Amino acid sequence: MTLRLIFILTLFIAFSTIGCNPKLENNTKTTESMKKATYAIAIHGGAGTILKKNMTAEQEAAYLKALNEALSIGEQILKDGGTSTDAVVEAIMHLENSPLFNAGKGAVFTNEGVHELDASIMEGKDLNAGAVGGVTIVKNPILAARAVMEKSEHVMLIGKGANQFAIEQGLDTVSNSYFYTESRWNSLQRVKANQDKSTGMLELVDYKFGTVGCVALDQQGNLAAGTSTGGMTNKKYNRLGDSPIIGSGNYANNKTCAVSATGHGEYFIRYTVAYDISALMEYKGLSLEDAANEVVNKKLVKAGGEGGVIAVDKYGNIAMPFNSEGMYRGFATPTEREVKIYK
Amino acid sequence: MTLRLIFILTLFIAFSTIGCNPKLENNTKTTESMKKATYAIAIHGGAGTILKKNMTAEQEAAYLKALNEALSIGEQILKDGGTSTDAVVEAIMHLENSPLFNAGKGAVFTNEGVHELDASIMEGKDLNAGAVGGVTIVKNPILAARAVMEKSEHVMLIGKGANQFAIEQGLDTVSNSYFYTESRWNSLQRVKANQDKSTGMLELVDYKFGTVGCVALDQQGNLAAGTSTGGMTNKKYNRLGDSPIIGSGNYANNKTCAVSATGHGEYFIRYTVAYDISALMEYKGLSLEDAANEVVNKKLVKAGGEGGVIAVDKYGNIAMPFNSEGMYRGFATPTEREVKIYK
Repeated sequence: MTLRLIFILTLFIAFSTIGCNPKLENNTKTTESMKKATYAIAIHGGAGTILKKNMTAEQEAAYLKALNEALSIGEQILKDGGTSTDAVVEAIMHLENSPLFNAGKGAVFTNEGVHELDASIMEGKDLNAGAVGGVTIVKNPILAARAVMEKSEHVMLIGKGANQFAIEQGLDTVSNSYFYTESRWNSLQRVKANQDKSTGMLELVDYKFGTVGCVALDQQGNLAAGTSTGGMTNKKYNRLGDSPIIGSGNYANNKTCAVSATGHGEYFIRYTVAYDISALMEYKGLSLEDAANEVVNKKLVKAGGEGGVIAVDKYGNIAMPFNSEGMYRGFATPTEREVKIYK
Repeated sequence: MTLRLIFILTLFIAFSTIGCNPKLENNTKTTESMKKATYAIAIHGGAGTILKKNMTAEQEAAYLKALNEALSIGEQILKDGGTSTDAVVEAIMHLENSPLFNAGKGAVFTNEGVHELDASIMEGKDLNAGAVGGVTIVKNPILAARAVMEKSEHVMLIGKGANQFAIEQGLDTVSNSYFYTESRWNSLQRVKANQDKSTGMLELVDYKFGTVGCVALDQQGNLAAGTSTGGMTNKKYNRLGDSPIIGSGNYANNKTCAVSATGHGEYFIRYTVAYDISALMEYKGLSLEDAANEVVNKKLVKAGGEGGVIAVDKYGNIAMPFNSEGMYRGFATPTEREVKIYK
């Protein structure tokens, strides 16, 4: 009987240890998502009050076309064995060059009626990063962010200095009026009219639309994330949002995931959104989906911060949660592909 | 015998559940540090190659005097029941007004021979935050950061816009030459001379000295953190370091801790240093000391990122790890007080 008791107890110890070891718990979750994709890519073109009833069929088609093109550009690079950094940069350049999104051509207007652009990029392999804030003459701000990462010993350059650095790096420059689109000009007038009627506070109407971003896992197992934006319509005082802030609007770490955010930037800075998703995975063993959901659909919702993220983990799993009405988004892996706008 | 077996097994289940519940494990650690102080404050005046052999007795006395004064200003506010935000701002203003530190008066020179100042502040109660980057005419940049937090809907303003905002808020402005000190001018000449001799790369000699910061816990249980700097000697292209980046150089959260960093800013941005300490406490249940040590003495050392942090947790525990030769620092609680420079 005593022997039987010892045997039962031994079995019990073995099972209870498995059941409650946090490390094993993590491994279980990891295993679930270990159907490792050889590559994966996700893009976004901004989150906000994007409703089907407010879109014409032509507008919808134009957005889907631009998103599909950008996705294909990045996808092809990854399929051919290229780097996640190249895929991210090329996909974002395509979105920056489209007048549909609030980045590059098509960027929103500041209160003074000009364009100030922000962008950032990060590589998961060695946590290298680069960012520019408030550039005014760089055709593709994501290229300036990449140049800061690769060609300077700095991480973040702003304003005139960032313009100057881009010029010295031989990047394409344009006059600020290149970024003009009629629809963004009309948005500024609308926002200013609303502002006059109300308390004089800035009206936060259009900020949500159009920040672009891309995250990718390449066949070498390296993650990268990039984000580019014109910021908030009618912004004043050289305001920076989360897009050029490493850890807030953009983050990549081969240990965990790559994240690009879009939304009400002030909340994304205060909640260190992009790095928080990575920390929840690394420190609490959450899956990519659970971590992204926790931050976007719990923490941010509770705080009142509208927006979303795209994220890819080191296994090629993809998460694209948003707490707004819609988010221009798409993803591709060797086996799946999807481009969507609404919930 | 069967009854006895059931009894033993029941006991075993109870104990094994307690032993492996991660929540209880956290609570144990928390209890260790629960000798809750009614208030606590820590300050820093920068970390770097600060060696006793390079300091005269007069220099050492001057630094200790300035640190003691700043600490006493903040301490008195907390003792009188004031807010952690007031304590942080007033202590930092004293360090900004001292020519000894690289913040406000005494800020380093850019490559162009001017001064560009960064500052940030965050409150742990509601994660409110404000920051300015590259201001040139604001006498006390920490006041501009506070005004952004309290008087705007934004978190971060940069350059001319941030100057303009400070003017509209009625803050004291000065000409850029107010920030001049002979020793910083000489540093710039020295760095430029070294630069010419070597590869033309920027010489990262003086960046480590003098960023200032303060963290505090007030009697209401609210944490706050503030950081202010002139950045890196000979910096170009309107470079921003970690000091104005929420989550990197500065962070506060009543759930965990308040952190202000000083060091080679590029590493502190890439490693999201300030928020990482908070995340290690919240998600892994580490004590303040263990979390700060993990980031400063393990992660940053491995990456090659020199510097340190000051941090206070919600119980009034204080940690001040640095991986450089020295850090100007001090702390005070109702029962302890210390001001130090070297290791």
